[in-house]
Amino acid sequence: MRPFQSERENFRSGADTPRKFLERCLEDFARLEPEIGAFTFVDIDGARRSADESSARWSKGRPFSAIDGMPTGIKDIIDTDDMPTEQGSVLYNGNRPLFGAASSTALRLTGAVILGKTVTTEFASMEPRGTRNPWDLNRTPGGSSSGSAAAVSGGMISGAMGTQVVGSIIRPAGFCGVYGYKPSLGGINRGGSLDMLSQSCSGILAASLADSWVMAREIVARVGGDPGYVGIIGPMKPPAAVRPKRLALLQTAGWPILDPSAREALDTVLASLAQAGIEIVTRSDWAELEEVEQASAEMLALTTKINAWEWRWPLNAFMERDASAISQSARDRLTIGLAMTQEDYAAAIARRAEIRKIYARLAAGCDGLVSVTAPGAAPLGLTSTGNPIFVVPGSMLGVPVVTLPLLQSEGLPLGLQLIGFEGEDATLFAIAAELENILS
Amino acid sequence: MRPFQSERENFRSGADTPRKFLERCLEDFARLEPEIGAFTFVDIDGARRSADESSARWSKGRPFSAIDGMPTGIKDIIDTDDMPTEQGSVLYNGNRPLFGAASSTALRLTGAVILGKTVTTEFASMEPRGTRNPWDLNRTPGGSSSGSAAAVSGGMISGAMGTQVVGSIIRPAGFCGVYGYKPSLGGINRGGSLDMLSQSCSGILAASLADSWVMAREIVARVGGDPGYVGIIGPMKPPAAVRPKRLALLQTAGWPILDPSAREALDTVLASLAQAGIEIVTRSDWAELEEVEQASAEMLALTTKINAWEWRWPLNAFMERDASAISQSARDRLTIGLAMTQEDYAAAIARRAEIRKIYARLAAGCDGLVSVTAPGAAPLGLTSTGNPIFVVPGSMLGVPVVTLPLLQSEGLPLGLQLIGFEGEDATLFAIAAELENILS
Repeated sequence: MRPFQSERENFRSGADTPRKFLERCLEDFARLEPEIGAFTFVDIDGARRSADESSARWSKGRPFSAIDGMPTGIKDIIDTDDMPTEQGSVLYNGNRPLFGAASSTALRLTGAVILGKTVTTEFASMEPRGTRNPWDLNRTPGGSSSGSAAAVSGGMISGAMGTQVVGSIIRPAGFCGVYGYKPSLGGINRGGSLDMLSQSCSGILAASLADSWVMAREIVARVGGDPGYVGIIGPMKPPAAVRPKRLALLQTAGWPILDPSAREALDTVLASLAQAGIEIVTRSDWAELEEVEQASAEMLALTTKINAWEWRWPLNAFMERDASAISQSARDRLTIGLAMTQEDYAAAIARRAEIRKIYARLAAGCDGLVSVTAPGAAPLGLTSTGNPIFVVPGSMLGVPVVTLPLLQSEGLPLGLQLIGFEGEDATLFAIAAELENILS
Repeated sequence: MRPFQSERENFRSGADTPRKFLERCLEDFARLEPEIGAFTFVDIDGARRSADESSARWSKGRPFSAIDGMPTGIKDIIDTDDMPTEQGSVLYNGNRPLFGAASSTALRLTGAVILGKTVTTEFASMEPRGTRNPWDLNRTPGGSSSGSAAAVSGGMISGAMGTQVVGSIIRPAGFCGVYGYKPSLGGINRGGSLDMLSQSCSGILAASLADSWVMAREIVARVGGDPGYVGIIGPMKPPAAVRPKRLALLQTAGWPILDPSAREALDTVLASLAQAGIEIVTRSDWAELEEVEQASAEMLALTTKINAWEWRWPLNAFMERDASAISQSARDRLTIGLAMTQEDYAAAIARRAEIRKIYARLAAGCDGLVSVTAPGAAPLGLTSTGNPIFVVPGSMLGVPVVTLPLLQSEGLPLGLQLIGFEGEDATLFAIAAELENILS
């Protein structure tokens, strides 16, 4: 990985430049990309030009932002006006949007270097598109932000845009050993991105915790959150580490299938945190947490139902155009959606609202929750992006989630997932920074 | 105007057909469109083919929906896959979206005949694009759904998609003497439409109250409301008339500038309603209503601020592409947005939420509110779309609004605006139907 924020002093002093930084990324790109397939499109010449312009700004002491010159990638469901946006589907082959999405536009305004578009599963949903995990080419990088995770993991870029509605940022970040940040609902303006579902969030995969925060914060400073949401708030700089008093372990419905080596790694982490004076509470200690754990059993089914309804359009338009271009999993989703009534959907979102209230009560008794990002290491094979059982709660609850690459399972990366409370993204980062201090 | 629902028995019996109905529309189109300029694009051959297919379905007794064969238009900020979508801006000249928006897709699935795209002001905002009012060619039809209102008014189509964030459905409907329906927030899926602001709503302009309801309801049955919203609920048929016990007059901040002839027309209507046994209450009768009236004084400024923030993107992308292609009013909006902080925006949407709560209390004391749609008839000239002071409350409050063409000012149409309570769209239509019975 190539953290960017930690190089900033060198850009200021001239000891390093964004162009030199980019060239190091491009070396990794040249070496790894042919095997990994993280990108659907790259513009190396354009990236070099951007990096040179950024280098000139840094040398004059006038960068546009803290991420000026940062090599980045944009998930291929997010519109760009100078690169194709193909949605992981042949239906969008060669699609050239007229204007960039909010986040793409903001990134350009920050001076970030946009190397290319990163591979997404079909419509950011189930069907993988061949990207391999840099840690083991026989394994999935996870999805749906597959290319963003793999490219950051391989050092080809320092940060990337991702999107999540079930587990599409946090799961691949965990499998690829990078940092992932899914903001509170509405945290980053989704305009011009296909992640239009009611649980969807645009977010960040990056090479460091600082890069994750600063990249998100710089975007939001320019284009805000979703209309009707304040968007991520907090300092422009990464929040300083704050030691939490009490963290809750969220076992989720995935606990029975947690891999023994992942369980062992998590136990070790929890012991280290306890040793540092942080109280760790579990479902047996706390009735309110037990209620959330019980609710977690229905979160995946509820999310599937909500998403199926909300996908009726544009899936119906896609099917009308060319049914053969649509994957079986997408057709199955449309079948579920078409069988639902408005009353079914009303009941599903009402239940989600109830569960969010049950969860919100935990804020009175803990500073945040910890979990893993998956039952174990990235699965072998490229046909599945892995089990979302540990990551669906953060999505369904609409709360901020960060993953730190601090666990291992079978010698491969697994994420330590931190889950916070709505709108308290900066607090979650302060805790994450402290956990990283303790555990690194 | 050419109401469609009232012809359905004739389609069933064969006494009339959608093709014959369309031909009557096309006669008005041929006669009026050269002077009015309601459309940016029409596909007459395609409409005739659609109408023939619809006629065949009706003759077999198997229409796709209650609006199968209904001649319609789609506001030109809503994507269509078989017609251009140009957003009222040269920046989108010849723009051909890959897929249709949710509402366009739904309309096609209903079997409705889509005659063309109707003129919008620039980005559904302030700058008019030359459409004339069929009642007086020297006057604006209102905006931003200018073409939709004018085309329905001229009998060229029976219904049209519009969108509203300040007053863009209800105001032009009032000025052109047609029916307008802005649903509760989230009522119609906005996917694929530029009306992405937090107060925006897709809605209907139509030739009858029944057409307004049925068109909206048939769309929502196919693509739902916005993600996270149940969408318009209620019967597929127009709600039966129900006599309200008590209606409140909403004077709004526009009362002092209400044209005397409009005031007289409204007084006459209120007297008729009172004579029919409906109690009419005003601000002096009711403290809670007085609070809403006072809040109405800040609604336009608050809306302007919220919209300016939410327009930073894509206006920043438009400006980056070609500043000279952007109107001064849009640039001014961007300037306001760029000068705002996240805290300013947070305060604005918090205040909006407060005002919505103040308004919601009125549901305990009245069945709905009545007002006018503008201070008077459509203004002379084509440079302004008219004063939004009477229509901004319904938008800012996120509640359903219907306008009935039952008032006149200076011998020209003005709308009788009915404002309801969030999610109670069907109730509002039941009241509207009764008022039309009483007043027609």
